[in-house]
Amino acid sequence: MKLLLVQGANLNSLGNRQGNTYGATTAEQLDTLLKQHALSFNYDLEIFYTNLEGEAINKVYESVEAGVDGILANPAGFTYNAYALRDCLKYVKPPYIEIHLTNIDQRNIRSVMSEAALGMIQGFGIDSYFIALEAMLKVLSKKV
Amino acid sequence: MKLLLVQGANLNSLGNRQGNTYGATTAEQLDTLLKQHALSFNYDLEIFYTNLEGEAINKVYESVEAGVDGILANPAGFTYNAYALRDCLKYVKPPYIEIHLTNIDQRNIRSVMSEAALGMIQGFGIDSYFIALEAMLKVLSKKV
Amino acid sequence: MKLLLVQGANLNSLGNRQGNTYGATTAEQLDTLLKQHALSFNYDLEIFYTNLEGEAINKVYESVEAGVDGILANPAGFTYNAYALRDCLKYVKPPYIEIHLTNIDQRNIRSVMSEAALGMIQGFGIDSYFIALEAMLKVLSKKV
Amino acid sequence: MKLLLVQGANLNSLGNRQGNTYGATTAEQLDTLLKQHALSFNYDLEIFYTNLEGEAINKVYESVEAGVDGILANPAGFTYNAYALRDCLKYVKPPYIEIHLTNIDQRNIRSVMSEAALGMIQGFGIDSYFIALEAMLKVLSKKV
Amino acid sequence: MKLLLVQGANLNSLGNRQGNTYGATTAEQLDTLLKQHALSFNYDLEIFYTNLEGEAINKVYESVEAGVDGILANPAGFTYNAYALRDCLKYVKPPYIEIHLTNIDQRNIRSVMSEAALGMIQGFGIDSYFIALEAMLKVLSKKV
Amino acid sequence: MKLLLVQGANLNSLGNRQGNTYGATTAEQLDTLLKQHALSFNYDLEIFYTNLEGEAINKVYESVEAGVDGILANPAGFTYNAYALRDCLKYVKPPYIEIHLTNIDQRNIRSVMSEAALGMIQGFGIDSYFIALEAMLKVLSKKV
Amino acid sequence: MKLLLVQGANLNSLGNRQGNTYGATTAEQLDTLLKQHALSFNYDLEIFYTNLEGEAINKVYESVEAGVDGILANPAGFTYNAYALRDCLKYVKPPYIEIHLTNIDQRNIRSVMSEAALGMIQGFGIDSYFIALEAMLKVLSKKV
Amino acid sequence: MKLLLVQGANLNSLGNRQGNTYGATTAEQLDTLLKQHALSFNYDLEIFYTNLEGEAINKVYESVEAGVDGILANPAGFTYNAYALRDCLKYVKPPYIEIHLTNIDQRNIRSVMSEAALGMIQGFGIDSYFIALEAMLKVLSKKV
Amino acid sequence: MKLLLVQGANLNSLGNRQGNTYGATTAEQLDTLLKQHALSFNYDLEIFYTNLEGEAINKVYESVEAGVDGILANPAGFTYNAYALRDCLKYVKPPYIEIHLTNIDQRNIRSVMSEAALGMIQGFGIDSYFIALEAMLKVLSKKV
Amino acid sequence: MKLLLVQGANLNSLGNRQGNTYGATTAEQLDTLLKQHALSFNYDLEIFYTNLEGEAINKVYESVEAGVDGILANPAGFTYNAYALRDCLKYVKPPYIEIHLTNIDQRNIRSVMSEAALGMIQGFGIDSYFIALEAMLKVLSKKV
Amino acid sequence: MKLLLVQGANLNSLGNRQGNTYGATTAEQLDTLLKQHALSFNYDLEIFYTNLEGEAINKVYESVEAGVDGILANPAGFTYNAYALRDCLKYVKPPYIEIHLTNIDQRNIRSVMSEAALGMIQGFGIDSYFIALEAMLKVLSKKV
Amino acid sequence: MKLLLVQGANLNSLGNRQGNTYGATTAEQLDTLLKQHALSFNYDLEIFYTNLEGEAINKVYESVEAGVDGILANPAGFTYNAYALRDCLKYVKPPYIEIHLTNIDQRNIRSVMSEAALGMIQGFGIDSYFIALEAMLKVLSKKV
Repeated sequence: MKLLLVQGANLNSLGNRQGNTYGATTAEQLDTLLKQHALSFNYDLEIFYTNLEGEAINKVYESVEAGVDGILANPAGFTYNAYALRDCLKYVKPPYIEIHLTNIDQRNIRSVMSEAALGMIQGFGIDSYFIALEAMLKVLSKKV
Repeated sequence: MKLLLVQGANLNSLGNRQGNTYGATTAEQLDTLLKQHALSFNYDLEIFYTNLEGEAINKVYESVEAGVDGILANPAGFTYNAYALRDCLKYVKPPYIEIHLTNIDQRNIRSVMSEAALGMIQGFGIDSYFIALEAMLKVLSKKV
Repeated sequence: MKLLLVQGANLNSLGNRQGNTYGATTAEQLDTLLKQHALSFNYDLEIFYTNLEGEAINKVYESVEAGVDGILANPAGFTYNAYALRDCLKYVKPPYIEIHLTNIDQRNIRSVMSEAALGMIQGFGIDSYFIALEAMLKVLSKKV
Repeated sequence: MKLLLVQGANLNSLGNRQGNTYGATTAEQLDTLLKQHALSFNYDLEIFYTNLEGEAINKVYESVEAGVDGILANPAGFTYNAYALRDCLKYVKPPYIEIHLTNIDQRNIRSVMSEAALGMIQGFGIDSYFIALEAMLKVLSKKV
Repeated sequence: MKLLLVQGANLNSLGNRQGNTYGATTAEQLDTLLKQHALSFNYDLEIFYTNLEGEAINKVYESVEAGVDGILANPAGFTYNAYALRDCLKYVKPPYIEIHLTNIDQRNIRSVMSEAALGMIQGFGIDSYFIALEAMLKVLSKKV
Repeated sequence: MKLLLVQGANLNSLGNRQGNTYGATTAEQLDTLLKQHALSFNYDLEIFYTNLEGEAINKVYESVEAGVDGILANPAGFTYNAYALRDCLKYVKPPYIEIHLTNIDQRNIRSVMSEAALGMIQGFGIDSYFIALEAMLKVLSKKV
Repeated sequence: MKLLLVQGANLNSLGNRQGNTYGATTAEQLDTLLKQHALSFNYDLEIFYTNLEGEAINKVYESVEAGVDGILANPAGFTYNAYALRDCLKYVKPPYIEIHLTNIDQRNIRSVMSEAALGMIQGFGIDSYFIALEAMLKVLSKKV
Repeated sequence: MKLLLVQGANLNSLGNRQGNTYGATTAEQLDTLLKQHALSFNYDLEIFYTNLEGEAINKVYESVEAGVDGILANPAGFTYNAYALRDCLKYVKPPYIEIHLTNIDQRNIRSVMSEAALGMIQGFGIDSYFIALEAMLKVLSKKV
Repeated sequence: MKLLLVQGANLNSLGNRQGNTYGATTAEQLDTLLKQHALSFNYDLEIFYTNLEGEAINKVYESVEAGVDGILANPAGFTYNAYALRDCLKYVKPPYIEIHLTNIDQRNIRSVMSEAALGMIQGFGIDSYFIALEAMLKVLSKKV
Repeated sequence: MKLLLVQGANLNSLGNRQGNTYGATTAEQLDTLLKQHALSFNYDLEIFYTNLEGEAINKVYESVEAGVDGILANPAGFTYNAYALRDCLKYVKPPYIEIHLTNIDQRNIRSVMSEAALGMIQGFGIDSYFIALEAMLKVLSKKV
Repeated sequence: MKLLLVQGANLNSLGNRQGNTYGATTAEQLDTLLKQHALSFNYDLEIFYTNLEGEAINKVYESVEAGVDGILANPAGFTYNAYALRDCLKYVKPPYIEIHLTNIDQRNIRSVMSEAALGMIQGFGIDSYFIALEAMLKVLSKKV
Repeated sequence: MKLLLVQGANLNSLGNRQGNTYGATTAEQLDTLLKQHALSFNYDLEIFYTNLEGEAINKVYESVEAGVDGILANPAGFTYNAYALRDCLKYVKPPYIEIHLTNIDQRNIRSVMSEAALGMIQGFGIDSYFIALEAMLKVLSKKV
């Protein structure tokens, strides 16, 4: 089982930001935890960080061509206006699950990408990632 | 560990509805699956169905008095205007996690209750329940 | 042929209200007239008054289980925000016809329940009830 | 008893339209059914088709001068912006009842002419005409 | 002189809420203070707590039948959409005065029930109750 | 000096309308008064009544071809949506002055045709016509 | 016959402004023309310039006490938000006629003061003043 | 205890207005009643009438410098847009209580000054003043 | 191949308008050019000018009955509110292509008739006609 | 004659998308057809695919520097918010023509880039490209 | 070089306000600093404090008559609705530069006066004044 | 002291644009002037031009890592929707000052990036750059 995780704009700065809305875990620490999770749940995980929406689109098309089974993304800075990435995720076959560290509904933010998502997980800090990955495994296991 | 699950307006008719947006599982079948999940994950689960918002409010206050650790709800018919239930969930201490069978963002619906939620799970059909319950266990295990 | 008529919030006070927008016929007088109509047109009519939206929902589900053929309602106080009742009426099989004493379009009011209605009759005072019941009989006679 | 029925823009094409929102009955077939109804209920019915709002206004003033007792109309293509016809119907004495084949509230359309209507009948297909005509007879019988 | 005070949704939890927008006085303590006030100002006071809008409507009709002279309410959770309760308060004769602990205009909240109120008192914490009761006595003393 | 006065939809019924917003002067009486005014102020006046926006447009083009010096109109029923007539009046050379019997700003109505007007006179009952005609004479006398 | 003309904010700079929307006539020249008009039409005219809305209100109350017969105003800079002056003009007895140099509907500006006006004259440059004064004379002559 | 009462735009005309929304009590009569109230409740009251928002601001700063304990205002004509006065009342220390003769919520008016108010009293006619003054005494007695 | 071209309100004045948004070609010159184009591309073209929306509707139904293959229209003055013509074009079978001389998107205008169009050509001056006719020929040639 | 065609976000996936709104022609097949068209109509065509708005901007500046005569673009995923690309197209000299496969007006989408376009072609599937290219040739031939 | 600085409503209370959004510098201290700046940069500075918009308008006209070279203003309490002052600043010749202590865009406030400003400086606390004055000197030095 | 200046989308074309809203200075000439300014005011300045928002984000993170003291940007084409760049500037420590050549408030444009700015300078043409740089030096000198 091969999964792609797209880390949207600014997530490279995780853990080093001013204020503490987003917690102290850095991007590097998160990656380590995600890799461990992939190991114990026995799946392939590619993590892709980018600050350019177009690069994310290119990556999605490449991964689909390479046979990825599911796509997850934390849109972060792309949340507000990544219409092109949204269209891209609607055009391709593998299911897409969206992740947010905070409960964006509570902060009165609307994700334009949600329109392409099978499901959404939001508000659990970095646990949102693990909950979303396990949800994706549930979804894919049903397809087999 | 004691959890309360509030099933909002119209969920009693699950599985018997016209159309197939909400799947074929009936409320009774869902309850059986939820009870099994509680057993294997070793927690107490009370499931409360109601079509009256005021009854849901009464139930939340009773459960909190009785020492409930976490509250989950699928607002269903309450999604659109349960402001009083929202206030109630904000006033009490235990964390609240919100569940939706469908991805309501995709259907352009906004839950007024989301403002009171720690986190939200939406779009995975009845799997939304199990994902939310496991997320609640993750949240509560950190508090201890 | 079995029909259910739901009388929404505040209709119990019919005929005793201040002002004269709604006429002088009381709820009791209306009930007598409706029962006579049912007798001469040879159908079963249950009239259900309630000020609680949830009770109306419960009643609808009960009646459907008991084999009701058609549902009529004067939403009255429910007109403005009975979203849950609307969903309920959309989920069940029997056709729903909506009744208003006054022409609510003229008074610039929009019924949120209209979305669930097969048809609407409005503006004829208490005659709206009889016109709606005869319309329901026309609709049901075609189904046989 | 003399009644005028105004058939608004595009109703001449009834039954020949693409799609099937409006049923298969043609304008000619409808006219025959309406004439039979007038015969058995013993009233005079003039049916007037037009695609020009101004012609409809002229016809209303002529009919009123000729002593018409009640006016019915299916605005059809005039639904969206016939403000002048609306004012005309408000200025004249005979009651006006509005007819729609479909439940326009459900299709999120608002008739600007409704402001001039005593009552409205919508959603019953061509039965909307017969229900409306019988409602008009009820209204006029009270006046005598 | 007989007065009814309706305590809307969630007021049962007063004094036990998280945060301190609403002060530390509990519902029980407030009731004792209100009873003392009734004693020293020499009037009858019934206090009615409910989380169900329909129960509030029923109570209002009962009290009016039993000859209540004035009605006060802190809508609390009913503030946002109790249209049916609003209509009920408009239909009955006794004057209605609305109470809010906080200045809701400042918090950008609009009470749908205000449309039925003779007057409003807001922003004085639990003193809002005593100011409102004394205002009601002023209003009623003029009627005699 | 040749002037055209367009009388918009429903003005033919002036003086015979229900209610008394528009006064008791009939269209015929108004015409007589206008003709006298033209005589004493020494100008040519053509008065054109129509319930069809398209006829008004045709008339404007004809009059312009025939050398009219100024155009006045009381849009009446055309006030709300005569966009095509507005465009026509913008395309032609002679100045256009708009007339309203009532102060439409006070009634919260906006004339879509005002965009084409040099000036507007509103709120003076039928005096609005005479004030407007004298204003037009002032305007034209400056051009010579 | 005594009339008051209020010249709103910035009208003192008339004729000296940048751009040429408002013409070359200065405030002094306008005053001379207005005085001549008063002489030949035989009425008393007080012209009051102010840049302070409150001063305009004070002046209106004084003039009313002194027996003024009619009030005219060019709101100019007060057009956008002189709600208090509007209320003042609604509270007093003498009729109020509003003047604008330009056609403000065409410039998509709405005068908040129009709600208090019997009638409005707009779009004729400084001729708007003379047309309005003659309209006021017509109005007052009818009252005698 | 020293209190300032600001009487906003047009309140000088109280009791002499057209229509009867605001009662027959004149400003002079109200002042006498207020002075008597101050005497029997043993506090100092300065009443300040003005039609200029800026004068009200100046007065507030002077009074604060002179040691005023509480500020009350009936914004009246200032209700709609006195943003500067609102800011002023937010910048100074003494509490501000807002007064309205009528229930402005019912008339669909929103006071921009409410954002600066500790509490509001509205709808009790001139009794609103006395209720507000007694409410202020309650508030100030707690501070000591 | 038979085509119908509907020329909407005001197009008869083409080339004689004030300003130069629409170019100097007159309606007559345009017709000659269109006829030449029909000749060289070998198709039948009927050009129909009208200022009445209802006449356009009548013409469309006639042409369809007579076997027209495609319909083109420059809505011009009908652009803003020809809802009835739009419905008519949706009801009939032949494809409809919409033409505009200017780029209406750039002028912030939305055509209500676009909803019925297979495709649109806008912004090329009178070349828009020839581009649209050639596009129609491409579309129809595929159907054969 | 040198032309640039910008293919916006996601157009690389043409023909491989889910659903069939966009037809079965792949990007490669389209390119071949376009090259043939360029050959037979005798012009130079550069086709540039990109998922990054900034790359499109860079390409436009380069082409302009290299002497391109006209620019065409199918914005696709850039349709919704490519404000910077829009500004760029407005700053440069060569005319810009916009292309859409579907009638976006019908799908209720507005292109932010249309503001920079001389003209638009939409709704003809891949024929939109050829119609647009021929329209560009017409436009450029006039300039010479 | 002569400059006028208008200090809008409530700026007299600078440094004595509750909270600390606006810093501790008082109006007097600010004036001293500004005078020193004028001395060292060799220009004439008049500082004018007012809480009345109309007084500000009067002052602007006087200063312009007296030959002022540039006008600066911190609108403060006038920010929200000083439309008349805005018009005044647009009518006069000298350039106007707007100053805000805080970044009002960040606080979601829009200055209605900005429409008249050559440029704006906001967000630098009292340094905003010095930056704005030096910017004004730059602007004026170019004109010479 | 090290400063970064980000030049947003399309600024590379400065001085070569059609129209003259933005002046005749080219990007190269501006760079020379900025370098001279840095020299005479003794600070380090890196100027970074890009048409890709993501590249700007990457550059900001790099510069912060390299110890930059302050960040300035002219968003230009990024003004309308660079939400991700805005978040980036909020996450990092060094102050951000925003620059616009024109007064964007006057052109009714709102910068989404302003939310992250300490202060803004707009409307002074290329002088906006020098005013902003000197403002930044003032800000940083206080921190030492």
